[in-house]
Amino acid sequence: MTDFKTALIVGAGDGLSAALARLFTDNGLQVALAARNIDKLQSLKDKLGAHTFQCDASQVDSVLQLFNAVDASLGARDVVVYNPSYRTRGPIAELDPAAVQQALMVTAYGGFLVGQQATKRMEATGKGAILFTGASASVKGYPHSAPFAMGKFALRGLVQSMARELAPKNIHVAHFIIDGAILPPGQQQPTDSPDRFLEPNEIATSYWHVLQQHRSTWTWEMELRPWVERF
Amino acid sequence: MTDFKTALIVGAGDGLSAALARLFTDNGLQVALAARNIDKLQSLKDKLGAHTFQCDASQVDSVLQLFNAVDASLGARDVVVYNPSYRTRGPIAELDPAAVQQALMVTAYGGFLVGQQATKRMEATGKGAILFTGASASVKGYPHSAPFAMGKFALRGLVQSMARELAPKNIHVAHFIIDGAILPPGQQQPTDSPDRFLEPNEIATSYWHVLQQHRSTWTWEMELRPWVERF
Amino acid sequence: MTDFKTALIVGAGDGLSAALARLFTDNGLQVALAARNIDKLQSLKDKLGAHTFQCDASQVDSVLQLFNAVDASLGARDVVVYNPSYRTRGPIAELDPAAVQQALMVTAYGGFLVGQQATKRMEATGKGAILFTGASASVKGYPHSAPFAMGKFALRGLVQSMARELAPKNIHVAHFIIDGAILPPGQQQPTDSPDRFLEPNEIATSYWHVLQQHRSTWTWEMELRPWVERF
Amino acid sequence: MTDFKTALIVGAGDGLSAALARLFTDNGLQVALAARNIDKLQSLKDKLGAHTFQCDASQVDSVLQLFNAVDASLGARDVVVYNPSYRTRGPIAELDPAAVQQALMVTAYGGFLVGQQATKRMEATGKGAILFTGASASVKGYPHSAPFAMGKFALRGLVQSMARELAPKNIHVAHFIIDGAILPPGQQQPTDSPDRFLEPNEIATSYWHVLQQHRSTWTWEMELRPWVERF
Repeated sequence: MTDFKTALIVGAGDGLSAALARLFTDNGLQVALAARNIDKLQSLKDKLGAHTFQCDASQVDSVLQLFNAVDASLGARDVVVYNPSYRTRGPIAELDPAAVQQALMVTAYGGFLVGQQATKRMEATGKGAILFTGASASVKGYPHSAPFAMGKFALRGLVQSMARELAPKNIHVAHFIIDGAILPPGQQQPTDSPDRFLEPNEIATSYWHVLQQHRSTWTWEMELRPWVERF
Repeated sequence: MTDFKTALIVGAGDGLSAALARLFTDNGLQVALAARNIDKLQSLKDKLGAHTFQCDASQVDSVLQLFNAVDASLGARDVVVYNPSYRTRGPIAELDPAAVQQALMVTAYGGFLVGQQATKRMEATGKGAILFTGASASVKGYPHSAPFAMGKFALRGLVQSMARELAPKNIHVAHFIIDGAILPPGQQQPTDSPDRFLEPNEIATSYWHVLQQHRSTWTWEMELRPWVERF
Repeated sequence: MTDFKTALIVGAGDGLSAALARLFTDNGLQVALAARNIDKLQSLKDKLGAHTFQCDASQVDSVLQLFNAVDASLGARDVVVYNPSYRTRGPIAELDPAAVQQALMVTAYGGFLVGQQATKRMEATGKGAILFTGASASVKGYPHSAPFAMGKFALRGLVQSMARELAPKNIHVAHFIIDGAILPPGQQQPTDSPDRFLEPNEIATSYWHVLQQHRSTWTWEMELRPWVERF
Repeated sequence: MTDFKTALIVGAGDGLSAALARLFTDNGLQVALAARNIDKLQSLKDKLGAHTFQCDASQVDSVLQLFNAVDASLGARDVVVYNPSYRTRGPIAELDPAAVQQALMVTAYGGFLVGQQATKRMEATGKGAILFTGASASVKGYPHSAPFAMGKFALRGLVQSMARELAPKNIHVAHFIIDGAILPPGQQQPTDSPDRFLEPNEIATSYWHVLQQHRSTWTWEMELRPWVERF
């Protein structure tokens, strides 16, 4: 069994990230949350006693500062989760190039920056887990959604490469393909189509399972989708 | 949360199947075990109070009799697991055609026969889970291993088709890709390469996690491999 | 460039197989056609001067007799194409087990039997190409179409395994995923949706291209679909 | 049959790009070559009568200027090929972030910029083909090669999304996975392992085949590898 004490969640909001923060805290981990806008993290911080950090994950310096700050307050980071993504939609001919670049930077490059800092620290301690959140677009390029596909495909390439390098170093790298819509905070499942949205708490449970896996039996990628989702 | 009461494990031996039987029993399920040779199931039967049934999963009549017998003793089957496979190795030019046919019949056709009977009963009760055990050969055709690839690819096609049909009927169909060697019963992990074989109990834990998934957040396929396995 | 003199097409009908037979003949190859029912091959035989052979590709003896007969009439077989498939549709619970077994036998096991005989002969001459026809179902298990998915997935596993073994022996093994409906013989493309069906002659052109590939630059799998096909 | 008159090759060097330029010219197309450094294109320009353009494909303005310049000299672009990539290798912990960003910009973002300009023009004329060059890293993230995987995975996501959007608009978008090492210009195949490197001229032949495909029978992705390459 794993023996993780601390977790850093990057891209923390009030959906999946909040569910992860709660579940990690319930299981005794000390949690740090990082987001571009930490105002929205206040209530989570209060409830969970979590540390919060402002960070733009697509900026080298900002990520470095984040990790240094977390080093100072939590010490080792056993678990790091990367959630941020940026997307823009439209026909290829009409996409704004700056937004496409932003999609690559936030969704994929930021994953590299955070993954790299996490790797450095976990290699030093000889253990850890780095989890990345993907989407349907990680494995299928939908029409009118090229920027999201570019970012999420790139992130998957990164994760696969990291998993192959780091698994034999006792660092568990895993990728989750969220193949469907997550239930938005404060909303209910529709009564005429029950459980059609992924429940954040249920997604968190699968992340937690992967974190608990014995190293003889690791998963590097897991798809999650609602029972009524076509795939 | 799921509320499963009974499980039928087909292809029961003393490795993964035994681990599943123990874990299911520990969690309060009544377990039935089916195998071509039930002599080897005696100690498991005694320890767990499990029912055992003789069955050749590649024969229509044998599978039908199995399910009828389980109907009579356990009633509803909430969980069905299909493990059997048959393989033969060698260069294409030297393979025995009868053995190739056997690989298809045991690995894939038997999966269909068991899956079909399970489906009929689960559709009647409106719930259930059917789990299938795959291998590296489910997604990669290795040289000198065509029969295993044929059987496991076919099984994966079956599972994918069943998952798409049955998920919206509240029946969770899932496929596990065991990508590495399972620690043989009675053996220890090598001291010079710790945890290099998949632990049956750890595999069972991931099957159990998938069984516990909420239907808003289902996995249809999960890969499991040792930390040192190249992939 | 390749220097192929003879071709054997198994599963010959009046659609893709006929197109291949014509294209091969036009390019100077001597063509043999094999089918369960050779009556339907009569006009093709007359037009092309092709040899025809009765064969049930899912039967060991029948395949052996076919290859022996072709040995006697054509000598070496440089190119072998395997097209047959058998499918049945329906919900899992309602499928006829005998039809499912038939789908595996014709679609996949027959591919092995023909592939094995072709391999033996090509290994002796040190060259050759074996082409297999797949479908959308080769890579996606659609609901209500499990038997076809089982057969076509299995065939793909076979081909991948053969390709890995035989490529370094100078035998080119390739798999074509026909992802869409082929224009039926005698029909026209619909005027309100031009070119929405795959043209058999155009498919044949891609098979021919793969046959012409230099061994420094081989394809083992190629998808073909109409421009308006969703994928 | 297609009726293409002009081709723009971006990322033109003296390997694959030169082979494509020669083959296109031989088949009657007027060819434009774009590269960051056009000095190296001089001999090709002289031999083929090709137009050459300086362009940094990862810069919005540079790509726009390129297309405007090509508009002025060639008119319509029927075929556009995107080849550039940038890679850097090393353990995750040691990679230079700036180089990782560069890999994403050149390999993937530049593909988008060029693809977008090509799309605008081809939508106006109602036809065209856009071809992208991938690598083994397009589908597999190798250890110590994360930046290349990120760039090439992202490019593949882009191409898949473009193919789905543009195919029904009569624009053929295709992706080539070069799975092996290309024979460097001026070198010979090793005598002890003949044809172990992909021949640029042979790759070009497959690109040409895809360009010639009838729209009822299009390929969106094609893998090419030497006969002795393990995959």
